[in-house]
Amino acid sequence: MKKIEICLAPVLYPHQKLDDSIVVVIDIFRATTTFCVALANGVESIKPFASAEETFTYKNKEGYMIAGERNGYKLEGFDLSNSPKAFMNNDEVKGKKIAFTTTNGTQAISLVKDDATVVIGSFLNEGALLRWLVEQDKNVLLLCSGWKNTINYEDTLFAGSLAEKMIKTDLWEHSSDSVEIAMTLYNEGRENLLEYIYKKSARIKKRSEEIGQEFEYCMKRGILQNVPIFRDGYLINYEE
Amino acid sequence: MKKIEICLAPVLYPHQKLDDSIVVVIDIFRATTTFCVALANGVESIKPFASAEETFTYKNKEGYMIAGERNGYKLEGFDLSNSPKAFMNNDEVKGKKIAFTTTNGTQAISLVKDDATVVIGSFLNEGALLRWLVEQDKNVLLLCSGWKNTINYEDTLFAGSLAEKMIKTDLWEHSSDSVEIAMTLYNEGRENLLEYIYKKSARIKKRSEEIGQEFEYCMKRGILQNVPIFRDGYLINYEE
Repeated sequence: MKKIEICLAPVLYPHQKLDDSIVVVIDIFRATTTFCVALANGVESIKPFASAEETFTYKNKEGYMIAGERNGYKLEGFDLSNSPKAFMNNDEVKGKKIAFTTTNGTQAISLVKDDATVVIGSFLNEGALLRWLVEQDKNVLLLCSGWKNTINYEDTLFAGSLAEKMIKTDLWEHSSDSVEIAMTLYNEGRENLLEYIYKKSARIKKRSEEIGQEFEYCMKRGILQNVPIFRDGYLINYEE
Repeated sequence: MKKIEICLAPVLYPHQKLDDSIVVVIDIFRATTTFCVALANGVESIKPFASAEETFTYKNKEGYMIAGERNGYKLEGFDLSNSPKAFMNNDEVKGKKIAFTTTNGTQAISLVKDDATVVIGSFLNEGALLRWLVEQDKNVLLLCSGWKNTINYEDTLFAGSLAEKMIKTDLWEHSSDSVEIAMTLYNEGRENLLEYIYKKSARIKKRSEEIGQEFEYCMKRGILQNVPIFRDGYLINYEE
């Protein structure tokens, strides 16, 4: 059997990483949700950056647009925000490469990209991702991007949801308290995950006054069928 | 109102630390439980070390005994293990200073000792510690030592238990997902915490075959009234 592990925040990664593994990067509100949406809506590729400065060097570069946020808000001078909406029904982004930086999600990709095969997870592509993972037959680490290097509810709940489904296949086993913790929290909130997050997370509840509809969208399951994968510096849709 | 925060593992501490705070170090199985027991049973003071080598230099030193474990097992050549039992009804330890090293707990003390007032928490002294914290009127961070830099159930559950009681006093407030997570898990397991840990943690369940009685003892509430505090390199019982 292969192993499954969950890192509830990026700083835990060095202590939990698995050999010969796939890392699923998770940043539900909103980076990894938006990556899935962008690549499902005609964006050619996404070049993730930890630093805003480096991202900005792609401004006006042929074939590129730049997207980014810090602390949940669009960066000044950037073409696009971190919102899934910015990439839906938007002809401007079709066929473009997007240089992208975010507070948490792109940092997590930078941390792991040299260690493992990196793919992108969100509720939107959960089913497609699960089917893809089943085909790969590898150790899998679910990496929650968290909030500024601490643990957050939304990423933990998605990790718990995906871990539960993976373990039910009997293809993966775990021996980690973190996996149990994520599955326990998911199980408590599963009836209405968004309400649960609002109840538990003061930070998200407050932000929902501005972008509650976006949060609702980020919790929709199975509406996308793509699996974004990191290859040679770019996220692209996996194709056989 | 003062703030309360929980670090579910030491590597999270730099990202969650609070100004002008008290840090409660938690290592339920078994370092901080044993520190409470030792100081309640006549040990004069405990000198915590991160490294086993440094601890060993206190071997046979006048007035000292040395105690330590790695991976849950007593270190070779050390006078005492990490077991609470080793310090109960043991005339040899009375009036002694104990140089002490453990896998997780003493490392956590080393991490925070220069930042904050450090005290020691366990189920055994939970009530006394709560009363002491109420008197201090300070920000409080509960630091779970965890297991080899990852998150564990037993420390998380104690942090959730203590945080719930602290927040009920209306003296502390929090805005952290980590505090909610610890309280949620505590609330799920509260009817029988040890059974709950056995169900959730394969690591602890396995180890209970050898030292299950010790684990039972570590979960007893309120049987000690001391509050170990770190001062000038030593843990001693707090006295006004």
